[in-house]
Amino acid sequence: MADEGLRDDLRRFVAERDWAQFHSPENLAKSISIEAAELLECFQWSSQADVDRVRGELADVLTYCHLLADRLGLEPGAIIREKLAVTREKYPVDQVRGRSTKYDQL
Amino acid sequence: MADEGLRDDLRRFVAERDWAQFHSPENLAKSISIEAAELLECFQWSSQADVDRVRGELADVLTYCHLLADRLGLEPGAIIREKLAVTREKYPVDQVRGRSTKYDQL
Amino acid sequence: MADEGLRDDLRRFVAERDWAQFHSPENLAKSISIEAAELLECFQWSSQADVDRVRGELADVLTYCHLLADRLGLEPGAIIREKLAVTREKYPVDQVRGRSTKYDQL
Amino acid sequence: MADEGLRDDLRRFVAERDWAQFHSPENLAKSISIEAAELLECFQWSSQADVDRVRGELADVLTYCHLLADRLGLEPGAIIREKLAVTREKYPVDQVRGRSTKYDQL
Repeated sequence: MADEGLRDDLRRFVAERDWAQFHSPENLAKSISIEAAELLECFQWSSQADVDRVRGELADVLTYCHLLADRLGLEPGAIIREKLAVTREKYPVDQVRGRSTKYDQL
Repeated sequence: MADEGLRDDLRRFVAERDWAQFHSPENLAKSISIEAAELLECFQWSSQADVDRVRGELADVLTYCHLLADRLGLEPGAIIREKLAVTREKYPVDQVRGRSTKYDQL
Repeated sequence: MADEGLRDDLRRFVAERDWAQFHSPENLAKSISIEAAELLECFQWSSQADVDRVRGELADVLTYCHLLADRLGLEPGAIIREKLAVTREKYPVDQVRGRSTKYDQL
Repeated sequence: MADEGLRDDLRRFVAERDWAQFHSPENLAKSISIEAAELLECFQWSSQADVDRVRGELADVLTYCHLLADRLGLEPGAIIREKLAVTREKYPVDQVRGRSTKYDQL
């Protein structure tokens, strides 16, 4: 179920500012890492974080993810589902239940 | 427009593996940074990257973002929209058009 | 106290492989983020990590930091000391003792 | 060649502020990722960056790397050298000269 309204809102936001020129896939990938670290900063010295601050930083990560997806012609929900199918195979329930072991060490 | 089907698929995936115990907000925030760096690795030595590889890594970042959102009772599309409204205010079209300057240096 | 022997070892390693062409400051900055995330991965699901694995990943982060420093004509020990002097001013002992508050919230 | 003067300066800086309590290996690993992303932010929209800003951010990454090394009883120069020996083996000159291919794809 693609959220085309959201995609269109993001496209309009970028177009109005003429920012597509900065949004190469590489720059968007850098931006995702940068925003992910700002999210991590909410938890830098403690496992407890302010939920409002987390919400804002998580939104930034998601926004750049959606921009990169759109740039590459991908639909976020679709690629999550596609990867979930792969991950289900890599981590069979009976082998991984209750364990955080990485698949290459199973 | 919430994608409740996707949310439910992710919940089922986690529940079947009994992995909610590992998915503290802090651990999910670390996971988002880790996966964001794997995405960045696609562009480590070149601005050109293999699209299939990018698709898989972007899906991983998005998946952990959705897991963190659900953990905090947030809806991904809603927080992107909410933040977009804030960012529109911080970056007025007439001041930022065609410029990548950060808001605190406008 | 500059460790010129180490700097020269790193230069020789790069020169023998003709890798300076890949080591733009931007690519080295990406590499530092990528390796930092591999270090973080040692702590993804637990605050306890295998020390040997941490040692190897920390060495990778440090190596790219030294390559970037050399590329920019900087000496690692010198810039750490220089920044330490700045940080001492930003975080006066009597205001921050025993607190992890960020300087802009002191 | 260990720089014990620098190590002692860092120890004194931390001790005066009673910050060792925050410097678990996990928190330092998070801090390294966070600072690495601030370094990357210098290159977010362009391959050209302000050298003074890079110098400051690189110093922050290095500082946390030294704090983590000291926490684990490791000497930064020694672990870089140790890893360099391993990497020399993984990337033999005659196989990798002028190529950025990862070792597992050689």
